[in-house]
Amino acid sequence: MSSLPVAVEPNRDEHLVAAVEGAGGTIVGLDEARVLVWIGPPAEFPELPDAVEWVALKTAGIEDFLDAGLLDNRRVWTNAAGFYAENVAEHALALLLAGLRQINTAVTRHWDKERIDTSVRSLHGSTVAIIGAGGIGASLGPRLKACGARVVAVNRSGRDVPGADEVRRSSELDSVWSSVDHVVLAAPSTAKTRHMINAETLAALPSHAWVVSIARGPLVDEEALYRALVDGEIAGAALDVTDPEPPAEDHPLWSLPNVIITPHVANPASGLTREMAPWLAENVRRFAAGEELISVVTPGRDY
Amino acid sequence: MSSLPVAVEPNRDEHLVAAVEGAGGTIVGLDEARVLVWIGPPAEFPELPDAVEWVALKTAGIEDFLDAGLLDNRRVWTNAAGFYAENVAEHALALLLAGLRQINTAVTRHWDKERIDTSVRSLHGSTVAIIGAGGIGASLGPRLKACGARVVAVNRSGRDVPGADEVRRSSELDSVWSSVDHVVLAAPSTAKTRHMINAETLAALPSHAWVVSIARGPLVDEEALYRALVDGEIAGAALDVTDPEPPAEDHPLWSLPNVIITPHVANPASGLTREMAPWLAENVRRFAAGEELISVVTPGRDY
Repeated sequence: MSSLPVAVEPNRDEHLVAAVEGAGGTIVGLDEARVLVWIGPPAEFPELPDAVEWVALKTAGIEDFLDAGLLDNRRVWTNAAGFYAENVAEHALALLLAGLRQINTAVTRHWDKERIDTSVRSLHGSTVAIIGAGGIGASLGPRLKACGARVVAVNRSGRDVPGADEVRRSSELDSVWSSVDHVVLAAPSTAKTRHMINAETLAALPSHAWVVSIARGPLVDEEALYRALVDGEIAGAALDVTDPEPPAEDHPLWSLPNVIITPHVANPASGLTREMAPWLAENVRRFAAGEELISVVTPGRDY
Repeated sequence: MSSLPVAVEPNRDEHLVAAVEGAGGTIVGLDEARVLVWIGPPAEFPELPDAVEWVALKTAGIEDFLDAGLLDNRRVWTNAAGFYAENVAEHALALLLAGLRQINTAVTRHWDKERIDTSVRSLHGSTVAIIGAGGIGASLGPRLKACGARVVAVNRSGRDVPGADEVRRSSELDSVWSSVDHVVLAAPSTAKTRHMINAETLAALPSHAWVVSIARGPLVDEEALYRALVDGEIAGAALDVTDPEPPAEDHPLWSLPNVIITPHVANPASGLTREMAPWLAENVRRFAAGEELISVVTPGRDY
């Protein structure tokens, strides 16, 4: 059996090349390839030869590729959603723990023991809602569980989520806010989720609540969030996403001590191909063995 | 059966009183008590009536009570080690994740995406050593495991630790530093552990390593740590303990961007009795039922 010919374009990234070769593939040009690993933007996406049976995209949110009409039904398309989910879930946990444990305050107020000691809260024993429990929720649930938290997952279908003690449907969302200690937003950005965190939902949350978002900026009404933080309606907010990005330099959220904002780095671009490599290797192995691939994208399905 | 008479001294803390009563006990003065819950300092510890069969101390490091010769063999003594372990393990995880995920940088450098994106590292896929894997290690192991890390536990006996992929004896410590990505110090402060983190061990660690300490300040040679951080021998340090505490206001560690120092708040004093309450309730229930208590202290054993 000859080894699987794989093109890694538009540049032969060292981590991905190593992954392909380690999984038994051979790096070739696109005109000889049965597989295309594409790590460039949609605008530069090449004309695909008929021989390409599988296209591996690196992005998790593949809206841009869908919008550009690039996906067809003549071959298999994968994204790296499964891989990203672990990374994003980890960042969500880091943000939540940093807030509860007052890392932000400790960094700016040196050994202010009186203030910090009275503000530190524990994740263990608390109840955390994961809103939009898809792949990220499935990765976050077991992490929160291992930290001793009770997990309430909220999704459209009400289907089971790993690590969740309880699953509620999105239609019951109104009842969630007052029954949990903290909230992690992991839902897609749609007309329905826009400003899901607003004056009303912030008022329903307990005053010790931290709101974490690793989803998309528009889920949070930032003006309402600012007011709730100033008024002490919630304890803090930790955001990896804002609307727009970056926030204005004089955005009032920057002035608050109980806000953590990371610059959309839950999936850092710099280490991306290095961290994506094991995932690609597994899919190359599966493809060569005729097994089902991880993270297959179905064109036409609503993401 | 009459309910168990319990004294909560030197003040009848509301959370502990509720815990005792919720577990079927009755709050009484010390002269009527079969159980003393003591939340004061050793210096104020009372003369114990013979009728007291169990003394519940709140502290985890009970060295001060031992040094004062307060523990006797005429009754059962418990501390709250089991409870504290969860809290301290959580803080250790918060510190490690905050460092890897660059929360400290994000708080001080607003949306410095270029710098932060290239500095963020993932816990999943990394190898973490827990040095001194007692109760804290046993609580931290499963948390790290759920985050996708490989866990190397180091303890004196080489006995199994929950969540550990590998256990090594303290005598093999020299070989640990170069074989792990990150280190969490959770060992007691003794002559042997003093300056365990020194110029030599720091040089052996990989340059992407974060060193986390939730143990005691003397385990770290802070001068050597400062040099290693300035020279880029390790990536960062996150400390909940220093030597002495607090560090001097002009301590050079405060000036470094890759250092996180929290003011010894892994077990915040402010929320202590609230968080300790469920643990006390469980022990009161066990005592009344004649079952074995959690966290029994054996006077004369070396902690």
